[in-house]
Amino acid sequence: MDGIHLLGEWYGCAADIPEMTRVQPLRTLCLHASEASGMTIVGDSFHQFEPAGVTGTVLLAESHLAIHTWPEHGFVTIDVYVCNYTTDNSAKAERLLRAMQDAMKPQRVKFQAIHRGGRDA
Amino acid sequence: MDGIHLLGEWYGCAADIPEMTRVQPLRTLCLHASEASGMTIVGDSFHQFEPAGVTGTVLLAESHLAIHTWPEHGFVTIDVYVCNYTTDNSAKAERLLRAMQDAMKPQRVKFQAIHRGGRDA
Repeated sequence: MDGIHLLGEWYGCAADIPEMTRVQPLRTLCLHASEASGMTIVGDSFHQFEPAGVTGTVLLAESHLAIHTWPEHGFVTIDVYVCNYTTDNSAKAERLLRAMQDAMKPQRVKFQAIHRGGRDA
Repeated sequence: MDGIHLLGEWYGCAADIPEMTRVQPLRTLCLHASEASGMTIVGDSFHQFEPAGVTGTVLLAESHLAIHTWPEHGFVTIDVYVCNYTTDNSAKAERLLRAMQDAMKPQRVKFQAIHRGGRDA
């Protein structure tokens, strides 16, 4: 159950791009980026906040992507968590985070990579 | 956009309880625990793995809950992330994590609390 969890906080994202403000463009981006990164999608849920802002998750066979946007602050948090159950999915996780970052274009990022799981106690 | 992200890894959970193995009992538990903790649910998505095991997320107005179960290893990972945008939701997050832990009854836990966000750059 060894896995890696990537956590990003992105500042200075363009407040007015559709992926920051509206649910369908962000959902489309997340699904496309997940597929393009080699992930296997098994579900998703996205919610539109009014007047603008989105919360969403993509369920992956590898674990999950979660994203929250605050357009009024140009702020995004993102999580990409993958379990390396049968194969090492770390490179897929990094590709997915990179693809999302390239699309959302933050001016400044905070990043943490957290190792999770490991051998049973 | 200041927030707190609680990450749990739970070992030694009972492999045969319905919440470990099947999607509907785990979904029901997550939704009830979220509500009981004072969270506002805005969406959810859960997936059944075969022969057993579940991946799921609950979208919250406060941010999200994510959970993954590996019954064959008695192993669970859980995330509770809340943004303290208009009010401090940290206590709700701790209540939710506690309620889930009381239900899944791990024999050993790893726990991290990560501060996220903060003032704009």
